[in-house]
Amino acid sequence: MDASTKINIPESTRERIVIVGGGFGGLQLARKLGRDDYQVVLIDKNNYHQFQPLFYQVAMAGLEPSSIIFPFRKLFQGKKNIFIRVTEVTGLDAATKQITTPLGHCNYDHLIIATGADTNFFGNKNIERHAIPMKSVSEALYIRNNILDDYEDALTTPSYENRQELVDIVIVGGGPTGVELAGSLAEMKTHVLPRDYPELNVKEEVDIYLIQSGDVILKGFSEKSSASALKYLEELGVRVMLNSRVTDFDGRKVYLKDGTTIPTQKVIWAAGIKGAPIPGVPEAAITHGNRLAVDRFNRVAGLTDVYAVGDVAYMEEPDFPEGHPQVAQVAIQMGANMAKNFKLRLRDGKGIQPFSYNDKGSMATVGRGRAVVDIPKPELHLGGIIAWLMWLVVHLFAILGTRNKIFVFLNWLTNYINYNQSLRLIIRPYAPAAPEPDDPKIDKVVAAS
Amino acid sequence: MDASTKINIPESTRERIVIVGGGFGGLQLARKLGRDDYQVVLIDKNNYHQFQPLFYQVAMAGLEPSSIIFPFRKLFQGKKNIFIRVTEVTGLDAATKQITTPLGHCNYDHLIIATGADTNFFGNKNIERHAIPMKSVSEALYIRNNILDDYEDALTTPSYENRQELVDIVIVGGGPTGVELAGSLAEMKTHVLPRDYPELNVKEEVDIYLIQSGDVILKGFSEKSSASALKYLEELGVRVMLNSRVTDFDGRKVYLKDGTTIPTQKVIWAAGIKGAPIPGVPEAAITHGNRLAVDRFNRVAGLTDVYAVGDVAYMEEPDFPEGHPQVAQVAIQMGANMAKNFKLRLRDGKGIQPFSYNDKGSMATVGRGRAVVDIPKPELHLGGIIAWLMWLVVHLFAILGTRNKIFVFLNWLTNYINYNQSLRLIIRPYAPAAPEPDDPKIDKVVAAS
Repeated sequence: MDASTKINIPESTRERIVIVGGGFGGLQLARKLGRDDYQVVLIDKNNYHQFQPLFYQVAMAGLEPSSIIFPFRKLFQGKKNIFIRVTEVTGLDAATKQITTPLGHCNYDHLIIATGADTNFFGNKNIERHAIPMKSVSEALYIRNNILDDYEDALTTPSYENRQELVDIVIVGGGPTGVELAGSLAEMKTHVLPRDYPELNVKEEVDIYLIQSGDVILKGFSEKSSASALKYLEELGVRVMLNSRVTDFDGRKVYLKDGTTIPTQKVIWAAGIKGAPIPGVPEAAITHGNRLAVDRFNRVAGLTDVYAVGDVAYMEEPDFPEGHPQVAQVAIQMGANMAKNFKLRLRDGKGIQPFSYNDKGSMATVGRGRAVVDIPKPELHLGGIIAWLMWLVVHLFAILGTRNKIFVFLNWLTNYINYNQSLRLIIRPYAPAAPEPDDPKIDKVVAAS
Repeated sequence: MDASTKINIPESTRERIVIVGGGFGGLQLARKLGRDDYQVVLIDKNNYHQFQPLFYQVAMAGLEPSSIIFPFRKLFQGKKNIFIRVTEVTGLDAATKQITTPLGHCNYDHLIIATGADTNFFGNKNIERHAIPMKSVSEALYIRNNILDDYEDALTTPSYENRQELVDIVIVGGGPTGVELAGSLAEMKTHVLPRDYPELNVKEEVDIYLIQSGDVILKGFSEKSSASALKYLEELGVRVMLNSRVTDFDGRKVYLKDGTTIPTQKVIWAAGIKGAPIPGVPEAAITHGNRLAVDRFNRVAGLTDVYAVGDVAYMEEPDFPEGHPQVAQVAIQMGANMAKNFKLRLRDGKGIQPFSYNDKGSMATVGRGRAVVDIPKPELHLGGIIAWLMWLVVHLFAILGTRNKIFVFLNWLTNYINYNQSLRLIIRPYAPAAPEPDDPKIDKVVAAS
């Protein structure tokens, strides 16, 4: 493919907005612009939007991936001004207003970087190689398969020491992801594993560890909620280790700062994220946490007609002098505000608003009937069943698509009734026979590079 | 792992029945024996049972894999005499009554080979390398991802010729699998693709081919049903090529016996199967279609206490002098008959019955409101809506598990209402960073081999 190849978006008299990334922020913007007088190009690595808050339920075999992800093409059916390309952005030339992808280049009038955040291993190559992240539905499925595989292996591993490596699970990071995963794995330990693996001594042998470097879990939540979540986890039997730090992991043993070790082959890494801007963005624009510095209109510092939204954007506003939390609500609100401003631009541009975050609160669920909810205005901290029901309702409504809502609801219902385990399937990807040099699939890869 | 390692099944005073393969035949036997006085070891490559008749709906993104497969461990919860091992059998020593697996060896008192059939490429290595089979849920998912990927690629492929390779689909084999897949892909072409890919000229460019070597499709069905199915396929726009034979496929072009070619990168191979017995079975026992010759009690010829059941078994009985059709019904009935005989053996062995196949009929669905049903006694041939509704009900009831029944039903309902496309997801497997020599996962593989 020569350098002049285009990504094949038809020319248009409309201005072209290119959105890179169909997460919460990018998708919100694309949907709100769906009926407007821009040509919108949505670029994503996947052909679907992912609902990150429920990845942990995919990982512990409570939900199917298809229930929490949604194909872009279905979402934008009938929207003639939207073009979807499943690819990655490999370069940016801000001077000529062009991005490059393996499918060819694409010009833009306005570029929105909505590429989110990626797992942060803090430079530790060992951990990166051996620990499992959970920032995509594919990774969540990988965790699921890994857990199930290791329990199968444990059945024919006679040595107690070796079995420990297979059955114990270490989760690093006490944020919502780590807490929710630890809670649901602990429930799996109590209610599912003894029934599925009567040959194992689950109660004695299986341990779920949650390792947190700070002295509280759910940092950023209220003190009351953090304390409740800790209590819930301990009730469920999770071994929570506060003020503890993982220094290394060789695939068989976790090394902690205090010199102790935990034998395990499974470390789930939810200890940190970093912004994931596209290649070609000037170094000068990259700031705290590898995020792109933006002004209150989401414009990337030092660039023209380039915006960043969501986890990849770093914006300071009076109430958030150190930037916003990297959560879905911020991304969604930023996307909506940008859409409104873009619409106003089409008229006379009057009424364009700087972004201001309206914090609706935070919630995390630890297990059946156990959740915490913080609401800022009026200040309210809820726990237990009430918080758990609120969590269920809020998440159910947030999932895209009626079919998905129904399927998630039914899954939750069957889980509630019988800790349903019919999703505990190890589906291995089919790999065709190794391609040989004359295979056209290889030509294709070469041609595209 | 040294040769003396055992698969870790506890010793028992009961006789041990080892079942290799949890398909329709093996599973039926295991379930019927679940309450009896044998120790049962069920060995399967996967941790789930697969409902083969609906693979094609997974391939065309109509159903999720999890709706038509079911974990063995959930199925056998509370059955203390059943032991499940997820592994493959690599050898048989009939003299010492022992099988070997990567997990170690396992002795048996009775061995049941229920390993089914595998795709038959009739020795053509090119076809084997480039065509996609559909004998497992992983392969069905692979077909789905491939189709969706290629439509995405087609959007940025400017040459008509190259686009044809991506959008056309060739199905080889006019049995139920080929016919059902062709029909559903044709419906996808009409109802889904134009909405998902408005940029493509679907009507003019996309072709679904069904290639059949004989002069009828659905061979083995009644003449009336074969003719109806052909009519249905043609109504749906499938290009059915009878008396046609694929001689080669290089990954870009299908070569037919009459010298013509069809440019395509996607060939789905449903043209034949062959028995897949376990390694170590004496050559002498292998007969027609690579199946194991068995007597009317499913005993493998020339071996003691070794049985074969289902697609891998070749049994002649007066009404079926050339063996039974390789279909689910035969496997299920064989499994049930064997279970009955094993139970009788525990008493005085009186009343043991030779197997006799009760043909309840055949059915195949071609599309919405289009199916054919043949019932032998009383002889009856149904088509159209009635046959389609019968097909739906029969398959719904045959699927394991209430949850799966409900989910399949809901999927069918949403498909019926709006040709639901929310499953059109390309979920790529997550691959962790390439392991390096010191990775314990590698040690594990070496240790197990």
